[in-house]
Amino acid sequence: MRKIDTKRTAERRQQILDAALICFKEKGFHGATMSAICRQAKMSPGHLYHYFRGKEDLIEAIVDEDCRHAESQIGDLLESANTLDAMLVKVEGMWKKETGIHGVLNAEITAEASRSKRIAEILSRGDNRILHCLTTIFASARQRGHIHDTVDPEGFSIVLMGLINGLTASIEATGGFDLKKTTEAVRFVLFRTLAP
Amino acid sequence: MRKIDTKRTAERRQQILDAALICFKEKGFHGATMSAICRQAKMSPGHLYHYFRGKEDLIEAIVDEDCRHAESQIGDLLESANTLDAMLVKVEGMWKKETGIHGVLNAEITAEASRSKRIAEILSRGDNRILHCLTTIFASARQRGHIHDTVDPEGFSIVLMGLINGLTASIEATGGFDLKKTTEAVRFVLFRTLAP
Repeated sequence: MRKIDTKRTAERRQQILDAALICFKEKGFHGATMSAICRQAKMSPGHLYHYFRGKEDLIEAIVDEDCRHAESQIGDLLESANTLDAMLVKVEGMWKKETGIHGVLNAEITAEASRSKRIAEILSRGDNRILHCLTTIFASARQRGHIHDTVDPEGFSIVLMGLINGLTASIEATGGFDLKKTTEAVRFVLFRTLAP
Repeated sequence: MRKIDTKRTAERRQQILDAALICFKEKGFHGATMSAICRQAKMSPGHLYHYFRGKEDLIEAIVDEDCRHAESQIGDLLESANTLDAMLVKVEGMWKKETGIHGVLNAEITAEASRSKRIAEILSRGDNRILHCLTTIFASARQRGHIHDTVDPEGFSIVLMGLINGLTASIEATGGFDLKKTTEAVRFVLFRTLAP
C-alpha cells in the first residue's frame, strides 16, 4: 500500500509541476494564477493545495528538480575523456532546453527575487547547488589537465552561469541574436579561456 | 521663446523618466502604475500623458537614453591606447550602474518582451544599437592589434552582452555571488579570450 501511495504522490506532484511550468511560461509568474494551474493540471484547488500551498512552493519544487537534474548529469562530464571537448559539444543544446526554469522564466523569477525574500532564498539555494556542480566539474578538469591550470573553477562557473542566463533569456524573448553566430562565439570564448 | 520651450520640454521629459525608473525598479514593470509614476514625478496625469501615453512609451524613451549614453561613450574606447586594458578597468564598474535599464529591471523587461510585441521591438532595437557600438569597438581594437585577430567582433559582443545581463541581474537580485571573485573571473575570461 505504502509503495503505491508514494508512487501516486510523486505522479500527482509531477503532474502539478508540469502544469505550473506551462502556466508560468505562458503568463509569467504574476500572471499565472493558482486556479489556472489547477485547470491545467486537471485538479481541484483542494486537491492541488494538499501538495503545494502557493506559487512560491511550486517555484521551489521546480528549482529543486532542476538542481537534481544538473547534479545527476555531473557524472557524464566528470568521466568524459576531455571535459573541454564535451562542453563545446553541449553549447548547441543551450538554446533548446524545454524543461525547468531557464531563459525568460529564469529572468522573471530573478526579477521577482529582488522583491520577495522567499523567492530570493529559493533562487540563491538553487544557484549555489548549480555553482557547486560546475565548480566540481572544472576543478576535476583542471586536475586532469583538460583545462588551463590558471582557471579558477568557482569564478569561471559564476561567469558561465551569468552568460547562459543572460543569453538564453535574450534569445527566447526577442529572438534577436543570430543563433549560429552566438553558438560559435560561446564556443570561441570557452575554448580561448579554458584550453590548456 | 522656442528655445526655452524646448529646454523646458526636455527637463519635464527627464523628470518623468527619472520618476518612472524609480517606480519600475521598486515595483517592477507590472507593479508600477502610471498614477504612482505621476506622484513620483510630482505631475498631474493630464500633464504626464501629454509627454508619454503609457509604460511602453516610458520604456522606449529609457532604452533610447541608454543607447545614446552608450553611443556617446564609444569614442573613449576607440581612442584608448589599449582597448583591452581599458575594458579590464571598466569591469569593476559593471556592478554599480545606477541609471538606465540594467540588472533586475533588464531581466524583467526581457521577460515582458516575450509577451508583448511592442516591448520586444523596443528591446530588440536597443540591443541592436548596443551591439553595433560594441562591434565597432572590437573591430577597431582588432584592426589596431589590441585584441587577438581571430576574435569575431560581433559574436564576442553578443556573448559580452549576455554575460553582463545575466550577471548583473543575479547579483542585484540575490546578492548571491562574491563580487570580488566575479570581477576577477570576468577579467580572466576577457583577458584569455581577447589578448593578442
